[in-house]
Amino acid sequence: MRAELHDVKVLVFDVFGSVVDWRGSIIRDLSAWGAQRGIEADWEGLALAWRDCYQPKMQAVRSGQRPWTLLDDLHRESLVSLLPAFGLNDLNATDLDHVNRVWHRLDAWPDAIAGLTRLKSRYVIGPLSNGNIALLANMAKHAGLPWDLSFSTEWFKAYKPMPESYLGVAKAMNVEPSAVMLCAAHNDDLRSAREVGLKTAFWPRPTEYGAHQSKDFEAAQPWDVVATDIRDLARQLLDD
Amino acid sequence: MRAELHDVKVLVFDVFGSVVDWRGSIIRDLSAWGAQRGIEADWEGLALAWRDCYQPKMQAVRSGQRPWTLLDDLHRESLVSLLPAFGLNDLNATDLDHVNRVWHRLDAWPDAIAGLTRLKSRYVIGPLSNGNIALLANMAKHAGLPWDLSFSTEWFKAYKPMPESYLGVAKAMNVEPSAVMLCAAHNDDLRSAREVGLKTAFWPRPTEYGAHQSKDFEAAQPWDVVATDIRDLARQLLDD
Repeated sequence: MRAELHDVKVLVFDVFGSVVDWRGSIIRDLSAWGAQRGIEADWEGLALAWRDCYQPKMQAVRSGQRPWTLLDDLHRESLVSLLPAFGLNDLNATDLDHVNRVWHRLDAWPDAIAGLTRLKSRYVIGPLSNGNIALLANMAKHAGLPWDLSFSTEWFKAYKPMPESYLGVAKAMNVEPSAVMLCAAHNDDLRSAREVGLKTAFWPRPTEYGAHQSKDFEAAQPWDVVATDIRDLARQLLDD
Repeated sequence: MRAELHDVKVLVFDVFGSVVDWRGSIIRDLSAWGAQRGIEADWEGLALAWRDCYQPKMQAVRSGQRPWTLLDDLHRESLVSLLPAFGLNDLNATDLDHVNRVWHRLDAWPDAIAGLTRLKSRYVIGPLSNGNIALLANMAKHAGLPWDLSFSTEWFKAYKPMPESYLGVAKAMNVEPSAVMLCAAHNDDLRSAREVGLKTAFWPRPTEYGAHQSKDFEAAQPWDVVATDIRDLARQLLDD
């Protein structure tokens, strides 16, 4: 490990797309549920359209246009707005809750659990995610993610990429920002973290958006660590 | 398991005394450190006097007499006030930091890790402790406590037994208070949790205060679960 990384104590992870495969998980989960219920829909199209609502919905909160609102509630608003286009107008309230909570039932990418488990032996590890606290806790249980503690941005009432979200981790852990490393498959997230003094680690998830992926195929800056996946991140931080 | 406990989803644990042996750990840690440094003191006496400052210090925060202050800082104030009585006036600032952080280095009671690891298979588990976030994270790493996430009361800016601390867990997890169980070796803590609707589990730690223990030898009320220790709590919740 390079000398400037010796003081890193806390690894925080972007989750959606970086640790869990939201697109693949949503397709698998809702296809199986739909088959049981006799509901057919373009689940991949829904997953992608739903995710497209993610940044605009949070931006309304970040800008102060609306008060703090949980991601579960933003997700539900987006879902309701998409139902007509996907022929899902007939879902009842219980169905809607079940579908909305698919974000609590996402599966990890194949390398994630092994990599996180190794990293946990030396570092405090946790999600730094815009997912709300309950969402992240339920997802960790579902997927078997071995977090030490949760840095949901709900605790800070500041969605990434607001500086308060990244700096909130350093403050809570009573360490300098440079003792915290953001680990993510998204260059934008890393850029914002670096701007406020965090260390950075990147690996690509080239199939996050399936055939629709347009960015994040590679590191856009010389991040502190560039890995092939989370298992490789563990190898670089623990073995090199 | 009795029917009224079927809806419990989240187990939160009092930590100091209930999960970790603060008195024994402080004696062991500071005796070893003192031996290396040639410092002799009544470490048990210091541990007990230090812990005696705990409730009064927090009460000044709870009452609004002083603003929110981290337990690490309250601990340090108490420690400084106790140094003369224990012949420790010569400690330098680095020593003081090291001694103060003994609360980050507490060891689990012998049954705790096995019991928590079993409970984690069904429940979301976390500390609900007045220890600050960094303290609880460092302690978990030191002692190997397998928490899913941390409900330090620092997140709520409300020290137990304020209702906001117990209810903050239910709100964060988006469940009813009755879906949360406080698990503790202290009747007072459980009483406050029950008053706001949480479920309750008790086990005794009859040697928490050594020869100076005066209470909490047994359950003061018919708590929802009364166990012999955390391993027995797991047996009752998972096997019965």
